[in-house]
Amino acid sequence: MSSLRAAARLRPIASRVTPSLRTQRPYSAAAAVKTSSEPSGEQPFFPNEPSGPTVKTAIPGPKSKAAITELDKVFDTRSLNMLANYQESLGNYIADPDGNVLLDVYAQIASIPVGYSNPALREAATSEQMISALINRPALGNFPQHDWADILKTGILTVAPKGLDQVFTAMAGSDANETAYKAAFMWRRQHERGGAHVEFSEEDIASSMLNQAPGAPQLSILSFKTAFHGRLFGSLSTTRSKPIHKLDIPAFDWPQATFPLLKYPLEDHIQENAKAEAEALADVERLITTHHLPPCAVVVEPIQSEGGDNHASPAFFRGLRALTKKHNVLMIVDEVQTGVGATGKFWAHDHWNLDTPPDMVTFSKKAQTAGYYFGNPELRPNKPYRQFNTWMGDPARALLFRAIIKEIERLDLVNHTAKVGDYLYAGIEGLAKQYPGEFQNLRGKGQGTFIAFDSPRRDEFLKKAKSVGINIGGSGERAVRLRPMLVFQQHHADILLDAMEKIVKS
Amino acid sequence: MSSLRAAARLRPIASRVTPSLRTQRPYSAAAAVKTSSEPSGEQPFFPNEPSGPTVKTAIPGPKSKAAITELDKVFDTRSLNMLANYQESLGNYIADPDGNVLLDVYAQIASIPVGYSNPALREAATSEQMISALINRPALGNFPQHDWADILKTGILTVAPKGLDQVFTAMAGSDANETAYKAAFMWRRQHERGGAHVEFSEEDIASSMLNQAPGAPQLSILSFKTAFHGRLFGSLSTTRSKPIHKLDIPAFDWPQATFPLLKYPLEDHIQENAKAEAEALADVERLITTHHLPPCAVVVEPIQSEGGDNHASPAFFRGLRALTKKHNVLMIVDEVQTGVGATGKFWAHDHWNLDTPPDMVTFSKKAQTAGYYFGNPELRPNKPYRQFNTWMGDPARALLFRAIIKEIERLDLVNHTAKVGDYLYAGIEGLAKQYPGEFQNLRGKGQGTFIAFDSPRRDEFLKKAKSVGINIGGSGERAVRLRPMLVFQQHHADILLDAMEKIVKS
Repeated sequence: MSSLRAAARLRPIASRVTPSLRTQRPYSAAAAVKTSSEPSGEQPFFPNEPSGPTVKTAIPGPKSKAAITELDKVFDTRSLNMLANYQESLGNYIADPDGNVLLDVYAQIASIPVGYSNPALREAATSEQMISALINRPALGNFPQHDWADILKTGILTVAPKGLDQVFTAMAGSDANETAYKAAFMWRRQHERGGAHVEFSEEDIASSMLNQAPGAPQLSILSFKTAFHGRLFGSLSTTRSKPIHKLDIPAFDWPQATFPLLKYPLEDHIQENAKAEAEALADVERLITTHHLPPCAVVVEPIQSEGGDNHASPAFFRGLRALTKKHNVLMIVDEVQTGVGATGKFWAHDHWNLDTPPDMVTFSKKAQTAGYYFGNPELRPNKPYRQFNTWMGDPARALLFRAIIKEIERLDLVNHTAKVGDYLYAGIEGLAKQYPGEFQNLRGKGQGTFIAFDSPRRDEFLKKAKSVGINIGGSGERAVRLRPMLVFQQHHADILLDAMEKIVKS
Repeated sequence: MSSLRAAARLRPIASRVTPSLRTQRPYSAAAAVKTSSEPSGEQPFFPNEPSGPTVKTAIPGPKSKAAITELDKVFDTRSLNMLANYQESLGNYIADPDGNVLLDVYAQIASIPVGYSNPALREAATSEQMISALINRPALGNFPQHDWADILKTGILTVAPKGLDQVFTAMAGSDANETAYKAAFMWRRQHERGGAHVEFSEEDIASSMLNQAPGAPQLSILSFKTAFHGRLFGSLSTTRSKPIHKLDIPAFDWPQATFPLLKYPLEDHIQENAKAEAEALADVERLITTHHLPPCAVVVEPIQSEGGDNHASPAFFRGLRALTKKHNVLMIVDEVQTGVGATGKFWAHDHWNLDTPPDMVTFSKKAQTAGYYFGNPELRPNKPYRQFNTWMGDPARALLFRAIIKEIERLDLVNHTAKVGDYLYAGIEGLAKQYPGEFQNLRGKGQGTFIAFDSPRRDEFLKKAKSVGINIGGSGERAVRLRPMLVFQQHHADILLDAMEKIVKS
């Protein structure tokens, strides 16, 4: 751990804050509490970050309760977890109206990349380019701005997965996936017709307007059991996480394949797990070759996130890529939750060493914008206006993603997260040895901070965490999922480990 | 017209620009050309706006062409209409990299409300609240910000349609409609079960995970022929605008009702049009009562926009409301394109004088954010996490909508648009008398600037418009649709009328 503790290369974030920004107020929460001094010698990314959580009241406290009552009159608050004051939040710490400041390892459902009130993002947010993007929002497909190519090339495309040099921008994870599905359907039908140059038939045209085949084809997207790909009608048809996500919503009769349920610790279940993965792949092949609505693509998460943090091995994903190649079916990797560094690689599928890249990779969350990457020119539909909508993304959010990417590069946050993830994993492994009943099926080794374990009293665990200063989330039925930001450091890991021990001991 | 010409109450926009903003550069384009002096005596909203278009090159000019070639390497440019430089665009005028400055009556497919580079929006875009909203984007359902109720109550909800006091925020028109559809399906199934308190059955739960009925119910949304409601899988199933929007995408087998095809001028076809509307309503009733997938909601645009600017009378919509009430089916009014003032009312359905409000009203485009309004508490699903996603909208865009609303109120832009729309309509009526073959089926009388006509050479008309300094759009197969911003004034109407005469004379 000594190399981690030294961490001399990590330059603190405030070093690039301009004087005029320093005088502004995002740091007031931090300033109000003791600032950090690191026993590990590690330099904090946010020098003014609190040295630890502050819990002043039960959460929600009186001020939050009053505000929630007001909010509930106009906005559904039944899924409210915690009312936040973001202007008082800094780095890894989220503040609430009652002065509570929690270490946040849930991070807006895994969507805050480089810390609250990050000065580099503030700089991007106040630029002339951003202001124009906000107040002059273009219909990008018709009237792109003159600097759109530059924004893409210096931002989103600099982190394009290997082999994929094109992007279609969207708004959030759900429509990123759905537009990727649409590209897949168009690609498949184009192949069936004999190529991009072949015109639509009269029957195609007429039937499409009636929502009937062949114009509205009897094809499908294959997804996995316990997968989550979004909650609009097409994406929800591929989502199989929980009944509450799906009940009462019409769905396409698309197929779902078995996802391998690995046993932990992995080293004690090598053969069993390999068998489970082989069976899952056989199920995929069966569905590709026999389902009454032939799949034109398989969509898969590198780690099933909402469904319970279910992992599979790189060999499984290589096998899946081989199967999709064999049957001329597209492979869409849904990196909405896994992408942008949290697994210790920029894209989680970088862990797999695929021979050929996925056909499409979707992203959102930590990117703060969304879309899908692709490389094969055949995935550009053969005519304009086939993949189109009014806004087609948001240049303001694309500018923010560019600033996030630059911040990740400046602080080498992907490698950092790989290392701090190893440290955190080792710490939880230690806890699991001490409290084996409380930390079950620990998973995410070598996957950065994308770590989870099952808890026998999961919902209680999450609730108690607040009382010891931690904001933490769950996934699936039993998992506690860790989703720290990329600026999560060893001293935060120490606080988190201490707190988790307190929770299970209480 | 004299009352229009006086327009003394219209305070120019620049009067509230702070000195520090004045020194910034959004006005350079305007400053480079002659500024307006109004023969009508009308005070311009943007004092530094160009006095008219400047056409320096063919469009695209050499600089645009080079940039488009670059852009095409990473972004599909086949639907590109014009490359824009928004930092040089001001008010009603859009600039391009070649120094062309066009009067823009298309306005980013009807989505720019109060002019390019509007100083009031700039002020909102540079506020501390906005910066925090941009860089600390919340998962609103779980961790709403402390001022979210206030942002809703001082913004989005101040313009809530009569009778609707709740909002579910979304990202764009498509997901606004789809989340409204989801609310409708949940509402219907809740009724079928016997109320919100009745638990899901085991069969509901199990079948939902298999995408099968009853959990994924065999129900539908009824829409109209030539309707447009978006292009994701659920919304696209209700869209019937053009084959190119629908080809190769699987769709739900949902019903489509006849939309009345009115004949113009209306006063010469009163009986025929009433008959067409009665037949359309009969078709709706037939589908509600007999379709094999029973509709739980009817979705309708006040004016079918993408489908060709197809209007129907207030009586038709009152009839539709009566039918939906009679059969206990919800009425969703899709105001994505018609909403926020362009028809001379804030919401186009305000023209109808309904006895009871629609059940849901969806919005996007000029709101620069999206979602659906509702009032009936039964439309809040009976459990949390049923209507949920990570971001659930975007506070940054909600703040922008609030600024737009305030600007609309400050300048009384809805009433203004009603008046300038009457002026513009009368002008086109004059042209239509002079050139009856060129301006056919003029429609939108009394509907603000939401005016359209059919052109025998529509695509040529749109293209030629650029050469005379006008950026204008089409809809459907033959319509030229006018979608000026709410800051479109009489002197802009004069320029537009002159230009349209030039086009048809050429």
